[in-house]
Amino acid sequence: MGDCHKIAIVGSGLVGTLLAIYLKQRGHEVHVYDRSKDIRAIEFSGRSINLAMSHRGWKALRGVGLEDRVRAIGIPMDKRAIHLPGQDLKYQPYGVSGESIFSISRGGLNKLMITLAEEAGVEFHFEQFIWDVQMDTATLFTGPTERGAWEPLQFDKIFGADGAFSRIRHRMQRQNRYNYSQKFLETGYKELHIPPAANGAHALDKNSFHIWPNGASMLIALPNLDGSFTCTLFMPFEGEHSFATLDTEEKVAAFFKKFFPDTLDIIPALLVDFFKNPTSSLVTMQCYPWVFQDKVALIGDAAHAIVPFYGQGMNAGFEDVTILAELLDAHPQDWNAALDAYQKERKPNADAIAELSYRNFMEMSSKTADENFLLQKKIEKHFAIKHPDKWLPLYDRVTFSHHPYHEALQIGNFQNQLMEEVLQVEGIADKWDSQEIEDLILEKLKSK
Amino acid sequence: MGDCHKIAIVGSGLVGTLLAIYLKQRGHEVHVYDRSKDIRAIEFSGRSINLAMSHRGWKALRGVGLEDRVRAIGIPMDKRAIHLPGQDLKYQPYGVSGESIFSISRGGLNKLMITLAEEAGVEFHFEQFIWDVQMDTATLFTGPTERGAWEPLQFDKIFGADGAFSRIRHRMQRQNRYNYSQKFLETGYKELHIPPAANGAHALDKNSFHIWPNGASMLIALPNLDGSFTCTLFMPFEGEHSFATLDTEEKVAAFFKKFFPDTLDIIPALLVDFFKNPTSSLVTMQCYPWVFQDKVALIGDAAHAIVPFYGQGMNAGFEDVTILAELLDAHPQDWNAALDAYQKERKPNADAIAELSYRNFMEMSSKTADENFLLQKKIEKHFAIKHPDKWLPLYDRVTFSHHPYHEALQIGNFQNQLMEEVLQVEGIADKWDSQEIEDLILEKLKSK
Repeated sequence: MGDCHKIAIVGSGLVGTLLAIYLKQRGHEVHVYDRSKDIRAIEFSGRSINLAMSHRGWKALRGVGLEDRVRAIGIPMDKRAIHLPGQDLKYQPYGVSGESIFSISRGGLNKLMITLAEEAGVEFHFEQFIWDVQMDTATLFTGPTERGAWEPLQFDKIFGADGAFSRIRHRMQRQNRYNYSQKFLETGYKELHIPPAANGAHALDKNSFHIWPNGASMLIALPNLDGSFTCTLFMPFEGEHSFATLDTEEKVAAFFKKFFPDTLDIIPALLVDFFKNPTSSLVTMQCYPWVFQDKVALIGDAAHAIVPFYGQGMNAGFEDVTILAELLDAHPQDWNAALDAYQKERKPNADAIAELSYRNFMEMSSKTADENFLLQKKIEKHFAIKHPDKWLPLYDRVTFSHHPYHEALQIGNFQNQLMEEVLQVEGIADKWDSQEIEDLILEKLKSK
Repeated sequence: MGDCHKIAIVGSGLVGTLLAIYLKQRGHEVHVYDRSKDIRAIEFSGRSINLAMSHRGWKALRGVGLEDRVRAIGIPMDKRAIHLPGQDLKYQPYGVSGESIFSISRGGLNKLMITLAEEAGVEFHFEQFIWDVQMDTATLFTGPTERGAWEPLQFDKIFGADGAFSRIRHRMQRQNRYNYSQKFLETGYKELHIPPAANGAHALDKNSFHIWPNGASMLIALPNLDGSFTCTLFMPFEGEHSFATLDTEEKVAAFFKKFFPDTLDIIPALLVDFFKNPTSSLVTMQCYPWVFQDKVALIGDAAHAIVPFYGQGMNAGFEDVTILAELLDAHPQDWNAALDAYQKERKPNADAIAELSYRNFMEMSSKTADENFLLQKKIEKHFAIKHPDKWLPLYDRVTFSHHPYHEALQIGNFQNQLMEEVLQVEGIADKWDSQEIEDLILEKLKSK
């Protein structure tokens, strides 16, 4: 273990708070700054998509002894439930071995983790605005307004865990040769709500991730502990069926009746919430470098904001913390080396999960309703169970493993190409689980 | 013609000044702001690559009657001259029909154009800092320091012609759903100098664009009117042969002796200039949208900064002005429509020339020394002369035409694919100009 440092973390979200606990447990003095009020004192804003915690998230929580506390507020989902107009519900199990992802309220988790961090001795400074950072001296500048006088706050190390629109990164970006991109989807989202049924139970199967695929748009629902579901409608901002054109209660009602007919009874406040709740945007943000010398580092969304379609945003941010902690432990006296290794290790993985998440909108909103896609998944699963040493499906590798994301992207591309060839076999729908197909895949794996 | 508007242009560079002349000629009141001193009163900084003016640039100058004035300060270059150690100079003509690009001093052209704009009645405000813009009211904010008091300046329309690191764009970027990226090359550049020979003449052929291809690095030289050449060394920042490792006079001298031996006698100040002149970086910047309502628009590098390897940065910015002027003339009473049409028309073309420019470093630094590449160029030229209606080589379409850049990219990709197949023909080097090959290309063109 190295020396005790005075460390500032900007941002009291999930990643900032988890990092604070890690650093505090290693003997550092840790201060967390947030411009917002203490989330424990306010009604959570509800402009959020529920979290889907999976292996990478759990590992990071396990590392600070919080796994059980958080599992207690999660609901396992072991399958997708696909809703299509006029068809029976279809279930698509997630993991090859029956694994689950866990629906967790973002606000609930954040509140719990702040309390746990406080108990560990982390000092939180809410409603304190950080306007700027001087990187070479690890100085933050704070004050009541951006244009007024600022007060310097001196640290040994500073972490920017302040999200996709990070102030800390904003200063980093002004360095020469700083690579940066922000790309917004043409698709936005809006939160809706499925209350508990009359008997207090969940109105839909609570151990499923519910999807209403509809091509350019898609509705999803994740269960909450109180019997409700948090729904999210993804839809283009502009175009035929879009947030721009669904501008009257009649049009919204007609749209839901046509494309999501089984939701009419279970989303009673649809017409109120649709016009009351904000329409939010979705961004992929990529940048590099992530660190400045041994002084400043970005982590989580501040370093790599991704779209939510793989359920990996928080998991990726938590894995940043796991990896960073391992590297700090490996270089206890050399923050320069640890931080540089951290950015070099994480950057290709952040880029890979950004790409996978971007692609996954298509998978969720269209392919989950596609026969060929379902057949492919069946073949992959069948083969993976027989040959676990030779095939781990992409979703499992991303969600239920700790293999690097960039490997998942690479191997996933390879598997997809191979499966495209397998799907060309005549009569594949009838003999997908035959010895012939199994041998064909084995042969193809050998020859590549 | 529409109403007279009070228009501000931020940036007195080439594009800002040309736009000012266009707008002034259409009867508007035009003010140009620049944080720098009047370039006519100072020694030009010399951190620049000479311009290569070509068809798109000339057309824009012709539109305001300046073509002849500018041609008088340009030196035509009708070919590349390729310098390789131990080999004779090789010449590669540029255009299918003997066209030239023109070497022009950036500083000289800018000075001339400011004077011409002033003569036309444009008002210049030098050493006036524009810190911010309020877009919905077309208000600029100016003041002696960023942190001090600002004074508002009220206009009807504002143009950001303030380059790759535009202040006007900086404000636009803060809008929701703003797409933005800046990507730096790992390659930097440094200016060097070939003085006139003892007799005052150019030390190298003055009607050539001189290239010393060297893989990851490259030296180029463009002629000046005074008998000198402006040289630019492109080289990686890091790595074996790089700005980081060439850190002593001995190493620089050895590097030039080995890779650019014929420059030893003609760059006498090499060792002084190499360590005195700054190493500059190269960025590709892309963003969207470019306009805000009928009030604010970006133009030139502020909207689309590209790397210099196709010689199209200024030409693309000048073409922005041509297109914008055409659209303003087409919608004289409707700036909303004109500006929206401008960004929709120019954005795909800006993206295409960004991609082409990025790719062209490889072409200049490696392929110009490659036999296969030269053979391909020969075949293309031979075929293009025989069938001008069927084949315009990519370089010609970009440089010596007014076809949109995005068409050039698309058709260029298609042509390249076709030529790759042609180069596979056995014995192609011996029969490249045969009827057989001509027929093969004709057939391939028909079938695709």
